Amino acid sequence: MSYCQVNKSLTRVDAYAKVTGQAKFGADLTFPDMLYGKVLRSKYPHARIKGINPEKALEYPGVEAVLTAKDIPNNLFGVIIHNQQVLAERETYYIGDGIAVVAARTREAAEQARELIEVEYEELPGIYRLEEARDEPVKPVHPEMADNQVAHHTLRKGDVKLGFAEAEIILEREYSTQLIEHAYLEPEAVIAVPAQHSTLLTIYGSVQNPYATRRAVAGVLQVPLAQIKVIQDHLGGSFGGKDENVSAMAARAALLALKTGKAVKMVNDRVESMLESYKRHPYQMKYKVGASKEGKILAMEIKAEADSGAYACQTPFVTWRSVVQATGPYEIPHVKTDTYGFYTNNVYTGAMRGYGSPQVIFAQESLLDELARELKIDPVELRLQNIYHNNSITASGQRLDNHQVSLKEVLERALTASEYKAKYREYSQRQPGEKKRGIGLAISYRGCSLGAEAIDAAAANIAILNDGSITLSCGLAENGQGLKTIFSQIAAEILGVDPERINYLPVDTSAVPDSGATVASRSTMVGGNAVKNAAEKLKKTFADFVAREYETTGAELVFRDEQIYNGPGKAVTSFSEAAAAAFYQGVLLNATGWYLSPDISWDEETGSGNPYFTYVYGCQIAEVEVDIGTGEISVLRITAAHDVGRAINPAGVRGQIYGGVMMGLGYGLMEEVETEDGYISNTNFDDYLIPTIKDLPEIIPIIVENPDPNGPFGAKSIGEPTLELAGAAIANAVCQATGKRIRSLPLNLERVLIGSSLRKGGRSK
Amino acid sequence: MSYCQVNKSLTRVDAYAKVTGQAKFGADLTFPDMLYGKVLRSKYPHARIKGINPEKALEYPGVEAVLTAKDIPNNLFGVIIHNQQVLAERETYYIGDGIAVVAARTREAAEQARELIEVEYEELPGIYRLEEARDEPVKPVHPEMADNQVAHHTLRKGDVKLGFAEAEIILEREYSTQLIEHAYLEPEAVIAVPAQHSTLLTIYGSVQNPYATRRAVAGVLQVPLAQIKVIQDHLGGSFGGKDENVSAMAARAALLALKTGKAVKMVNDRVESMLESYKRHPYQMKYKVGASKEGKILAMEIKAEADSGAYACQTPFVTWRSVVQATGPYEIPHVKTDTYGFYTNNVYTGAMRGYGSPQVIFAQESLLDELARELKIDPVELRLQNIYHNNSITASGQRLDNHQVSLKEVLERALTASEYKAKYREYSQRQPGEKKRGIGLAISYRGCSLGAEAIDAAAANIAILNDGSITLSCGLAENGQGLKTIFSQIAAEILGVDPERINYLPVDTSAVPDSGATVASRSTMVGGNAVKNAAEKLKKTFADFVAREYETTGAELVFRDEQIYNGPGKAVTSFSEAAAAAFYQGVLLNATGWYLSPDISWDEETGSGNPYFTYVYGCQIAEVEVDIGTGEISVLRITAAHDVGRAINPAGVRGQIYGGVMMGLGYGLMEEVETEDGYISNTNFDDYLIPTIKDLPEIIPIIVENPDPNGPFGAKSIGEPTLELAGAAIANAVCQATGKRIRSLPLNLERVLIGSSLRKGGRSK
Repeated sequence: MSYCQVNKSLTRVDAYAKVTGQAKFGADLTFPDMLYGKVLRSKYPHARIKGINPEKALEYPGVEAVLTAKDIPNNLFGVIIHNQQVLAERETYYIGDGIAVVAARTREAAEQARELIEVEYEELPGIYRLEEARDEPVKPVHPEMADNQVAHHTLRKGDVKLGFAEAEIILEREYSTQLIEHAYLEPEAVIAVPAQHSTLLTIYGSVQNPYATRRAVAGVLQVPLAQIKVIQDHLGGSFGGKDENVSAMAARAALLALKTGKAVKMVNDRVESMLESYKRHPYQMKYKVGASKEGKILAMEIKAEADSGAYACQTPFVTWRSVVQATGPYEIPHVKTDTYGFYTNNVYTGAMRGYGSPQVIFAQESLLDELARELKIDPVELRLQNIYHNNSITASGQRLDNHQVSLKEVLERALTASEYKAKYREYSQRQPGEKKRGIGLAISYRGCSLGAEAIDAAAANIAILNDGSITLSCGLAENGQGLKTIFSQIAAEILGVDPERINYLPVDTSAVPDSGATVASRSTMVGGNAVKNAAEKLKKTFADFVAREYETTGAELVFRDEQIYNGPGKAVTSFSEAAAAAFYQGVLLNATGWYLSPDISWDEETGSGNPYFTYVYGCQIAEVEVDIGTGEISVLRITAAHDVGRAINPAGVRGQIYGGVMMGLGYGLMEEVETEDGYISNTNFDDYLIPTIKDLPEIIPIIVENPDPNGPFGAKSIGEPTLELAGAAIANAVCQATGKRIRSLPLNLERVLIGSSLRKGGRSK
Repeated sequence: MSYCQVNKSLTRVDAYAKVTGQAKFGADLTFPDMLYGKVLRSKYPHARIKGINPEKALEYPGVEAVLTAKDIPNNLFGVIIHNQQVLAERETYYIGDGIAVVAARTREAAEQARELIEVEYEELPGIYRLEEARDEPVKPVHPEMADNQVAHHTLRKGDVKLGFAEAEIILEREYSTQLIEHAYLEPEAVIAVPAQHSTLLTIYGSVQNPYATRRAVAGVLQVPLAQIKVIQDHLGGSFGGKDENVSAMAARAALLALKTGKAVKMVNDRVESMLESYKRHPYQMKYKVGASKEGKILAMEIKAEADSGAYACQTPFVTWRSVVQATGPYEIPHVKTDTYGFYTNNVYTGAMRGYGSPQVIFAQESLLDELARELKIDPVELRLQNIYHNNSITASGQRLDNHQVSLKEVLERALTASEYKAKYREYSQRQPGEKKRGIGLAISYRGCSLGAEAIDAAAANIAILNDGSITLSCGLAENGQGLKTIFSQIAAEILGVDPERINYLPVDTSAVPDSGATVASRSTMVGGNAVKNAAEKLKKTFADFVAREYETTGAELVFRDEQIYNGPGKAVTSFSEAAAAAFYQGVLLNATGWYLSPDISWDEETGSGNPYFTYVYGCQIAEVEVDIGTGEISVLRITAAHDVGRAINPAGVRGQIYGGVMMGLGYGLMEEVETEDGYISNTNFDDYLIPTIKDLPEIIPIIVENPDPNGPFGAKSIGEPTLELAGAAIANAVCQATGKRIRSLPLNLERVLIGSSLRKGGRSK
């Protein structure tokens, strides 16, 4: 099958708007008479609020409102568990908790007035270490709860006792990962506009999940969903990080907008963002693996514990993905996995690109290398012996029989491109001097889309106008990943037109049905299928009309190159002419596409099921040079092979790989939110380190295509798989270079120099 | 059939927003950095433009752009004939023609700078009288044309020669009607916003027909329709008057917005509106009628000529409706009708409530009374002898067999309520003193919706959100007539919910398919059917889900009172609960409704066909007191009986009747745009008289309901029928009171005192 628009590196449809500055991001938007909102946040990670006096703030020139929890119809919200406070009422649970919001005519006035709000606190002891949260539940973080447990998921396969009894070697290792920040370029920004266009409130801004924001705002205000409209267009990065915190911001802006009758804009500066926004969960993991001498893995037992921070947020779902995938892509007869999340008074943790996978992949892939070393088997050989193939039964009991399981392919493609074998041999030799090189790999499988977490569906609208131009919109939000472009390609492919015809419209929650969130690398598959469905419906209506109108023969009409053909030779008509003709005959060329993902299952009781309807497979190989004098790691090259099913836009896929690899590199080497008893010490990018261009290794992206029967044109996922492997691959490469097995991320100078056993509890510092 | 929400005087859904001032009209809207646009209009009704020098205007502080015709990609537009200039290029054709537009940072600067634009004119002789336009086509108004004829429609039935030969009495009369202004409360206002939300231009404002405006702007700018979005919400009256002129304004604002990169707002003041906006066509009509002595009308020959002014605008369609309806609702074996439109250099004329019917109804109903007087037959008896009944064949040859022809019913209902017979007898007696009373009536039939003029379809979107709240939108624009309310009622009726659940969204041309224009009293029928279609689709999807989910028996589910029932007794579930359940199972509760009106026909060659798919019938009876000393007419009472098929909202129907009667009264008694050689002398409401509260007679609205098979719940039209009768009824009443037959509107003091023969050509003054 050859495509015209799909499988092609079309320039991004929003490129022009972005490079010319026409693209408006949250902070760029202004409205007449707009006020600026600012949040007063807690002075202490855990405190009782004994009183709030807004008098002086209210007197400050330009201030139009100060609101506290008592002004809020329904102060609690949350995607899963409604225990997150819009503004702290009796207690603050973490350092980012808001206590009051101010709206003023200038941002400066709002900031000044915020400082004049008098809060009487009673500082309370907090729980900041995971062990404490788990083991000493005398005084839970949330007083209404019996303990601090947010979530506990189990996965059970076979009988691990039997498995370990059969094993000839058993390893037990502990691994940990750190708290990290999404570090999106654009901090959170929201504007709430009251009484605009017959809707109570319209929310604009840097919203990752417009429907969740609508739900949160409606819930907090206690008004119908139909009275809230969220419009989302350009967004400067999210990586999972602009959901609950942006919903809270939207709710606060909405409250101020209703109070004042004016548009209210709230934009976090970086420090505010770092203090308040949720982070990636730090994990503490215990892995026990049993294998035969030959390297057949027989049993694995895993316990992974996540710090949820002050709120539940996405912890129940994040730890669920971990429980499903914690063994990695290895067929193991006996598995017992338990994942947990616990409340603490740390900054809360939620969705971040990877969503419970980078943590367990770091552990599992480190463990595989450790096992290989113990068994004196080549790490590649050990993996090849155990990886999933077609018809494998996963840890959760799912038979992989509906798509191509391409682990061997991605692994071999990466091995070849990275010259792994030669380098592995080379770096296994003694290396003179301070600088030692190593090469390491990591592989993964990843369930596409939401899985059994939630309803998984999306919608798209397409309209062919009477001049043949087209509007397209989808309920999934462009996060910068390029969905506008690939959705345009999918629609153009099916309708046989140039993507230039299409105007891609912003998400408007009143115009497109709830399509869930832009998460879980689901946009291409689920949103793409919705676009495909809409385009196919439209094409059918259009073709039926053309067949009637132009009295074509029975052969199916072909839409291609802006023309409509009925067999070989001259076109029956052009797309534009036919669109005009259809209009003047009252044929409706509008369609809403809908895609509901295939049935999947999860049984919490038995800890098994078919949690995802398909999976993607990836392999990344890192080549590093370690200065054993300074502990500095230079990543020389990362080879990343990913099966995406079908690359709708190969350039876009490569872009995802480049970005994901760098994010994985940051996770592996340097990123860490430093906390001390709930306080965050690195609140800006001067001391929260993220990789820069100077850290950029050579990256070799390899796109592997095994079309999936459920994907649009066979396409699957690429967003998250790219980021979850580099940390583990680098750790394995560092181990080859130095002989040191570092079991905690990040692999910073200190750990490389001193080596690390597992930190016992708590976060680094 | 009993209804819950339909046939009920629900308070307007936009009432709260309007009375609290939350409702934003065109002039209320502001955008950041917005500029103000102003138009420089022609100094002469007809002139050659020899040069334009914008230098001084450009130097005026605050001015950001001055544009002329040469800056416009495509300067010509028009709904039917593309000969209307966005800005005059070589010639101005009427006094309202724009020559240049200025954008400045304040309205005052734009107005000041406008005066600094130097235009070198060569004044040209113009054509201002209809006779001249028709008879002396040496130099046509539009140089590229052979003559001034815009339109000529014919209607032919039987053989008028034969008819007149058989007739025992023949009358020939001439009638004329005047040029009038729509006099909407809110003058034209448009804002063009560039690069908003990934669309080249978004147009907001007082737009009657968002899709025509989109088409015009895209055509003028030569950009795809998909790049233009029009959002329309509240509108302060239109009466047909905010179409082409608002499209021109939108195109001008759009040009300025693209030039400056800023939002540009243009708001006409009343004088600008009076000078530029199109008016209702003045008609000159010749009627010849032949009848038997007993009053059976045998033949009618009609010639009606309309002054189209400088542009074609809607003249081809307006004169077409006239040709169809010019005989009135009388079954006449032999008919010959010709209607014409001619270009002049007067202000152009276009759509106005009534759309070619008030003129011919004034003539036809005056004529019937004249004939009755000649025949010495009671006017009612004469009408009853000739009116349409079920299965009558209309003048165009259409058999009225698909709906209840209720002329007799509306006539009798009005006669009874007005105590016509007694009063007619009473006022036929000699009345002492200066004040003489009379009673007169007029009846009409009117084709509903567009008829064979154009494609007649509309769309509506309904979404049930997961909390059970509902959004509803339609492509037809609320013009103040109340469509938001009745569409909400229709949706609520079908879905069995309280209309409070519904948030009625503004028209957004990117969100709702092109539904044509809010004209021709088509909203309730065509738009209402689209809403009904959407609601029924949704209900079916919803009911199928509920049946599956709640395992109901085979009986059809009933949606009522916010509940869903499966037979008598307890509800299966509530609407809200079921909506949430459907959402969480991925059932899409969104639907686009579409209604394409039934097949109709018109043959221009034979002048016959079935031009409308149904008709409405009305009767108005006016009771007047005339001061024969001063010529002053006091209208004491107007009884208005209208068959609306079904009143979706009886209060709304009565509102239409009150307003329409007053507009008819103004047309009958006082309104007239005074022109002299193309100049307009009464450019504001101090000298352009419209009826005020002091002119308000007692109005007795009578709603007659004969449900139409093609109407939603049987509903037909009410907007225009209410306005087209009062002028004729008053003229007939005045004639009874005074014995004077006035054949020209308005019935002003002068005419009442002096009497009038038909003015010979030209407009009054």
